[in-house]
Order: sequence, then C-alpha cells, then structure tokens
Amino acid sequence: MTGTHVSFSADDYRVRMERAAREAHAAGLAGLLIAPGPDLVWLTGYAPPAATERLTLLVLTPDREPVLVVPALEAPDAAEAAGASALALRDWTDGKDPYATTAELLPGSGRFGISDNAWALHLLALQGALPDSSYASLTEVLPMLRAVKDAAELELMTAAGAAADAAFEQIRQVAFGGRRETEVAADLAALLRRFGHEQVDFTIVASGPNGANPHHEAGDRVIERGDMVVLDFGGLKDGYGSDTSRTVHVGEPTDEERRVHDLVRTAQQAGYDAVRPGAACQDVDRAARAVIADAGHGDRFIHRTGHGIGVTTHEPPYMIEGEERPLVPGMCFSVEPGVYLPGRFGVRIEDIVTVTQDGARRLNNTTREMVVVD
Amino acid sequence: MTGTHVSFSADDYRVRMERAAREAHAAGLAGLLIAPGPDLVWLTGYAPPAATERLTLLVLTPDREPVLVVPALEAPDAAEAAGASALALRDWTDGKDPYATTAELLPGSGRFGISDNAWALHLLALQGALPDSSYASLTEVLPMLRAVKDAAELELMTAAGAAADAAFEQIRQVAFGGRRETEVAADLAALLRRFGHEQVDFTIVASGPNGANPHHEAGDRVIERGDMVVLDFGGLKDGYGSDTSRTVHVGEPTDEERRVHDLVRTAQQAGYDAVRPGAACQDVDRAARAVIADAGHGDRFIHRTGHGIGVTTHEPPYMIEGEERPLVPGMCFSVEPGVYLPGRFGVRIEDIVTVTQDGARRLNNTTREMVVVD
Repeated sequence: MTGTHVSFSADDYRVRMERAAREAHAAGLAGLLIAPGPDLVWLTGYAPPAATERLTLLVLTPDREPVLVVPALEAPDAAEAAGASALALRDWTDGKDPYATTAELLPGSGRFGISDNAWALHLLALQGALPDSSYASLTEVLPMLRAVKDAAELELMTAAGAAADAAFEQIRQVAFGGRRETEVAADLAALLRRFGHEQVDFTIVASGPNGANPHHEAGDRVIERGDMVVLDFGGLKDGYGSDTSRTVHVGEPTDEERRVHDLVRTAQQAGYDAVRPGAACQDVDRAARAVIADAGHGDRFIHRTGHGIGVTTHEPPYMIEGEERPLVPGMCFSVEPGVYLPGRFGVRIEDIVTVTQDGARRLNNTTREMVVVD
Repeated sequence: MTGTHVSFSADDYRVRMERAAREAHAAGLAGLLIAPGPDLVWLTGYAPPAATERLTLLVLTPDREPVLVVPALEAPDAAEAAGASALALRDWTDGKDPYATTAELLPGSGRFGISDNAWALHLLALQGALPDSSYASLTEVLPMLRAVKDAAELELMTAAGAAADAAFEQIRQVAFGGRRETEVAADLAALLRRFGHEQVDFTIVASGPNGANPHHEAGDRVIERGDMVVLDFGGLKDGYGSDTSRTVHVGEPTDEERRVHDLVRTAQQAGYDAVRPGAACQDVDRAARAVIADAGHGDRFIHRTGHGIGVTTHEPPYMIEGEERPLVPGMCFSVEPGVYLPGRFGVRIEDIVTVTQDGARRLNNTTREMVVVD
C-alpha cells in the first residue's frame, strides 16, 4: 500500500489534475482513467487501503471537474483525502453497476488513457460499457506525467535519499560475517524506518553467489568472510522514494573483486556523466553499458541502467536502449549498472540522480568506493 | 505481497493447472493468462516480489504444457517455485517484446480468460499483439476456479481461523479505554503474527463513531469508556486466509447498544443457517439482510454479506444479491452483516464458514455475544 502523505494542499492536487487533463487533451485523448495506486496518490492524495474488484476510478476529462468514482463504503475515507475538495465524489453501492456510472461521465467514443496498473477486470468492463471507446496505457500516452518533479517534490526526494544514505552509514558498521542475509535485511529495514521511511519496499542483501542474481532478495544464507554483498534498499519517506545500492566486502577483497567493483563504479560514473537536459534516456544506458562492454563483461550486465522514482520506487522514465525521450530538469531516476558472475558474485552500484538545468545532481552521496565490512 | 508457502508439491500444482486448462476449455476459452497474484500463487506456488510493468504471465492452453513468461532477471527465483517443475519457463530480456513471446504461445484468435488483477498495461499490449483475440476476466468466466477448497486447503483455512480466534482471545484482555485505535491495531497485528500469520492484511479498530464507517481502519482517536469498538482483522497463515470481526464494548453497554448488537448477531446466525450445498450465494445475503431489514435498519446495512477467502482474504464467491451460483462443499467465505449508525457507532460480526456436505461449519469460534472490555 502506498502511504498517503500531507505535504501537498488541495490546490497542489488541483493543479496536477488540471495539468493531466490538459496534457491528455493535447495528446488527443478524450480523458484519463486513474486507478488506485501511484497515479491516484499523485493526482489526489488518495490511497484506498487496497486495490480490489470494487471499482475506484478518477475520471479526468477536459471539460468537467474531476470525478472520483468510489465504493460507497470507502467514500468517507476518500472525502478526507488531501485533494478531495478539488474533485467530486460519485459513490456507488454494492450491487449497482459502477461501469455504467463511469460511462455516464465519459463521451461514448474516444480514446482514453488508463493507469498501467488498473485491473484487467475493470478495463474489460469499461470496454464492454463503452464499445466505441479505445484505451492506451498512461505510460504509453503520457509517460512523463509524473516524471518531472517540482521544487517541493525534489525536496522530498532529496530527504528520502539522505535517509537511505544515513541507513547505509549505519549498516556498514554492523557485523555481516556469520549472520544470515535476512538478519542484515531486517537491520536495513529498521534503519530505513528509523530515518523516516514509512514504507520499506525492498532490502536486498545478496551475498556471495546470491549477488549474481540481480533480483535475489535476502535468504537464509549465512554471510561468510570473503563474500561480496550487494545491498539494494529503498522505500517511501513522506510519500517519496529512495533506492540505493552499494556492494560491500566482508574482509579484504581479492584483486579480481576489486577490479570488477572498480569497473562498475566507473560505469556508474559514466552513466551519471551522461545525464544532462536534452540527452536521451538511452544515452545514460549506453554510457554505462559501454564501459562494461569494453571490459569484456557486456553479457554480464543483464538489466537496464535505471528507472524513474517518485511516489513509487519504480516508474518511468526508464534508462534503456530504445528510450529516446529527452531528459528534462526535475526528472529523478536511478543509475545502477551491475556485473553478475553466475555462481560467484555480483556488484551493483546505484544512486538516484536528478536532472538539473545544466547537468545532474546525485541524491545519494555515500562513498562509491568499495567498503570493507566485518 | 502474497507469501509463498510450502504446503503443496509440484504434483499438486500440476493437478491445479490441468484442472484450470480443462475448465477453460469447457468454458469455450482458448486459454488462460495468469498474472502475478493469487491466481499465480494458487496455480504454481510462485509469487514474484512485486507486480510490475515487466510482464510475468502464466499461459495455460489445453494442448500444451504450461508456460511461464518471466523477465530474465526473475527467472532464477521462478525456477525455485514449488510448481516450477510442472511448467516451462520462457524468459525474456529487457528491451525485447514479451507480448510477441506470449503471442507465439497462443492461437491468433480466440477468447482468453485473464486474471482480474492483470495490469491494464499488459492487457492492452496483448490486445494489440493479438488483434483478433478477445478477453474476459477470470472471475467472470471461471469464478469458482479457486473457490472450492480441497482437504489440505481446508486444514490450512481451519488453522488460520483458529489463529485469528487465538488473537481475539488475547486482544479482549488488553486495555482499550484511553489508548489510540492504532495502538490496539498494532497489538492485533502482533498477535496475528505470534499465532502464525506471515502476512497481516488488515487490523481494523473502529471505535465509537468511527465504527459507523465499515472501512475505517484505525486512526488517532483515543478509545473512550462507553465506546463500541469494531475489530476486523485477518491475513495469511501458511498461505491461507483468516478474517474475523467482533464488536466489543468498553465498559457496560446501553440497552440500545445491546439491542443493535443482538440484531447483528441474529442476522449473522441467519446468514450462517442459510449456508448449505445447493443454496444460492444470494440466499446467504438475503437471510442475513432480512433480519436487519425487519428490525427497520435495512438502510444501515450498507455492504454485501460476505466474500470468499483462500489464498487471498478477499475473492469470489460473493454473498450478494444477484449472485445466483450455488454453494458447493469446500467453499469458504465470510458471513459478516453489520449495522452502521452514522455519527454514533457500528456493529459487525464476522465468521469465516465453509460449506460441508450437509450444511456449514464455522472456522471462527470465539463468542459472538458482546464482549465487555476495559
């Protein structure tokens, strides 16, 4: 569940909804259909306790006030959302047809943008209720809607990054050797909370050979002296995301381990150096990837270089080959190359960076040199 | 995140997948498309860390082995799922088109059932990749796929119910008066975990006027002497759900409070008494609702009487007017009527029940009489 937060006023949400409706219109859309999740939180401040088979949907059209279709029994909570005064509530009761209610708010034909994470159940019912309509995912038609952060959002992003950094400065001082990955992960989660995160999304502790699986989380493996350990952790602080990775070593690393770590650090720096207004997203990926490929490890960097972050820890824009959209000041995303040697170890180094008027700024600032832990 | 669990073997999952493919075929479907979430957990034992924009999709067709389309970097985890040996993995790498990969596994036309909670993003891309296909939500075409529990599942459901009951027996002994709802809710969550839940889905503590909002969770309100307090809590134990509500009173209740509580208890009993094989789901709703309507509170019972439960705490079948499908032995669902008096208080009483060969059995067995707490 995405937490609500109280940093923004109804006017802030009104401005966001107006902007979204305007951009939808400019993109040739008849309206936007916003499902519970990050889009809804960003546009209204409202986060229902869970996305369910009961339809909750924000309807944004150019020519009318925003309407939130909401189950009757969730209407009292919705009415208390920070952005509630900037929209109209249209509640519906169990047994009634919420899709008919929604259809009444929409032109009978036209193309609508719909939240990526809207349930197929709801989309299929809308397609049935409005057979002449068509739909496109919000990230396809308005991929940059939430991507550019304003000054207040950047402050919150900066604070979230600093909190994650504070967690790293503490975790590097705990004992790693002889403890299970899950124990260190629990420490990390507690530290994120201690430094202000209300939500912990992931605390990857991938030791030794587990580090070669970029999506390993944390398991029962006991960390040993001589292990490389990938740490990748983040969550939400005051509604905005953190996400940082550092790879530490238990005791003194071998020359090869140092070499791979240096390579990833150099690649991360190259990715960061490619960040500036007007560069394409894929340029960041290419810059980081070239360093690793030139060293002969191109086939061991098995994921894209980065992803956007904001009210979620994972969103557009993506730093990936083929993403030609330009970087714009205020965008926030990860730069996180890695090298993964199956059966042996992995290295990943990740900072959140934001695009500035003339380049970039890192929101994570702990050392990127290899840290030796106990 | 839905937890994985280890109670079932690859053969169990194979049987489930075969049954699903068979039922899909019988329903005139060309196949099933299963997204991360409860359907996938139930069919394969696999729960990716999160549902994301990266496609993970189980493809079940009548004439071929099940295939799990999965992002390359999540493939190692998927390969360790309990049901992995009963399916083929088809991984895809960032930058490739996973919808084309999926389309290759499917007939070019035909109707497919798709998980309710599949992302709109993925459904729209599939609709684009297979323009002659059509789609229906899984609960529309195979609503009862997960509804009937087998003996092993019923054992797990019974144990989850008993654990929730144990939590209630403890929580009724703590102090309510003078503490915030959130504090009692935290106690409840800790108790659910202590009694074996790996996941807590909700711990509603709705005191005084907050009880009149059936979806109030827990807030800063300090519980006072004289308050009715609705407790509604549940989660997953060993992968199967609990969900029970009791309404307690801080100190001695008034005659009116007793009367409303008795009314809801009588309605809950009437709903339970209506549960037997062959009765319609809506009969359970009608039986409970009639009691409350006859007492003049029909308009204050503002939700359906119940919902199914299994690998989630909220799923078909629904006990609601218009749901004419018959009850079948092995189904598990809630019976939870309530009366909500705006600005004053609410009462809800909820047990999970299972349909037996000749009637019903409750999986919650704490007293349904009003409990007076301190």
